[in-house]
Amino acid sequence: MTATGVPQVLDAGTPYEEFRAALLADGLLYETGARGVYGYSARYQSVVAALDRLITTLGGDLFEMVTFPPVLARPTFDRTDYLRSFPDLMGSVHVFRGGDREHRLLARRYDEGGDWPELLDPSEVVLSSAACHPLYALASGNLPRGGRHFEIQNWCFRHEPSVDPARMVAFRMHELVFIGEPGAAQQYRDTMLDTSVEQLAALGLPMEVVPANDPFFGRVGTILATSQLEENLKLEGVTPICSEQRPTAIISGNCARDHFGGPFGITTADGAVAHSACVAFGVDRITLALLHRHGLDPSKWPGQVRRRLWR
Amino acid sequence: MTATGVPQVLDAGTPYEEFRAALLADGLLYETGARGVYGYSARYQSVVAALDRLITTLGGDLFEMVTFPPVLARPTFDRTDYLRSFPDLMGSVHVFRGGDREHRLLARRYDEGGDWPELLDPSEVVLSSAACHPLYALASGNLPRGGRHFEIQNWCFRHEPSVDPARMVAFRMHELVFIGEPGAAQQYRDTMLDTSVEQLAALGLPMEVVPANDPFFGRVGTILATSQLEENLKLEGVTPICSEQRPTAIISGNCARDHFGGPFGITTADGAVAHSACVAFGVDRITLALLHRHGLDPSKWPGQVRRRLWR
Repeated sequence: MTATGVPQVLDAGTPYEEFRAALLADGLLYETGARGVYGYSARYQSVVAALDRLITTLGGDLFEMVTFPPVLARPTFDRTDYLRSFPDLMGSVHVFRGGDREHRLLARRYDEGGDWPELLDPSEVVLSSAACHPLYALASGNLPRGGRHFEIQNWCFRHEPSVDPARMVAFRMHELVFIGEPGAAQQYRDTMLDTSVEQLAALGLPMEVVPANDPFFGRVGTILATSQLEENLKLEGVTPICSEQRPTAIISGNCARDHFGGPFGITTADGAVAHSACVAFGVDRITLALLHRHGLDPSKWPGQVRRRLWR
Repeated sequence: MTATGVPQVLDAGTPYEEFRAALLADGLLYETGARGVYGYSARYQSVVAALDRLITTLGGDLFEMVTFPPVLARPTFDRTDYLRSFPDLMGSVHVFRGGDREHRLLARRYDEGGDWPELLDPSEVVLSSAACHPLYALASGNLPRGGRHFEIQNWCFRHEPSVDPARMVAFRMHELVFIGEPGAAQQYRDTMLDTSVEQLAALGLPMEVVPANDPFFGRVGTILATSQLEENLKLEGVTPICSEQRPTAIISGNCARDHFGGPFGITTADGAVAHSACVAFGVDRITLALLHRHGLDPSKWPGQVRRRLWR
């Protein structure tokens, strides 16, 4: 069981498997041969693009937009401490650094259907686990008074293969981030999450805001999860997709406190360690929630929803 | 030396390093801590988005658009035979599959600044090496008469860290692909490449079409490279970015013949093995070529160029 209560392995015939089958049969998603990794049709992609535009509007001119590739420098990843909490979700990029001789060995292993990837070496990058992770290195140093606002879009990777279509291994996250004074960061999280959840509700999605319960790994993780809950650091906006009892998180609001400001050397105008807060939109999950609620053909969605997305 | 004649390691003070420094100083690109991996500003991204729209228009309604995530199923990667030709460029995604005990070991190694990635295991995915690689598995089976046209956008990964800003480790590729009869595939490559190169020239880029000379790996690679040249299978549209003598490939036109149709079981309406051809736009390289030619502020580019991109 994980954060939103969805079991990792789901049997065929469940509502998850049925929704997934419908998305594939209708040509919205394509299978790729790796569980949780999909190709996206133009129709699906048009909803993603519309949501991205809507989120950009929510941020407004105050926000500096930065786009990152799907890979993250390993030293940056190390400083996020993600490996301690979610080792099972991360992806590390390994490469071939050999010469002709090693290539012959690699090719032979490959021809024999053997385990050729074990002949590779770690590269200087990992896959992005969260859209905002590459940001903090870029923001290091002294902030202007009033802090800084960023809008970040990114492909993220979380290794949790599942037949639940809302639990993709590769997916898009769009974040609105604030870095500044501690009090301002807390207030930003609360107001921006409220505004954003209202926008999602206006798209016809029944929304509820609940304390998040991240799937921290292992025995130490139980302590971390309890602490996260007690301190109310992360809230999630959930909506039922395939299950009323186990709604899916489609947006989260996070108080990271000094978790990034400290390791990345970000300071407020007064020289104190900066706090950060972000609202993260799970764009693929929101797309799936809309397709589940309003039907698989966006051209037939309620006029009010269409006008908000394609005005 | 590689395909376009750019050495892998370039000294500071070269035109490559100078252009890179200008892009960073002007805030178009951000450094991330990994060579060849950048963050992209809103200004840079606006050019990328405009180019993507232009390429979509070039394709037109005939083309089915499919968007893929940056990761590719390993069995699909294996069938492209990329590992044999370009082992040094590929990236394999490795993950943690252990329990509490193994996590303690991993965390200790991480705390000590040791080589924790070596404790990971290969996952079922690699990074996409070319935008169209995930496509062929999806197109397997019998084609309709006249073949099929696809438009593909994707983040690609090629591990060749360089100070040449046009040689990014993670970059965007946008492809227009045809799969069908052998003769039609050859003709598609020639006409679509011509049309596309004309469009790039109309953006004010001096273009030349030359036989490509891919950086096939090692001693066997020399034979593959010679064969590619002799058979005229790959053409590149090049333009000078940082060097007149060594122009940069910003688009390529490829006759893949039965390289994908065979392994992925794609057949023509008559049941023969299908041939494929693609025109691949290096969207980041085109963006850099435009910034180098017309200046770092797109709002001051020649009206004719701006109208084509932002009509």
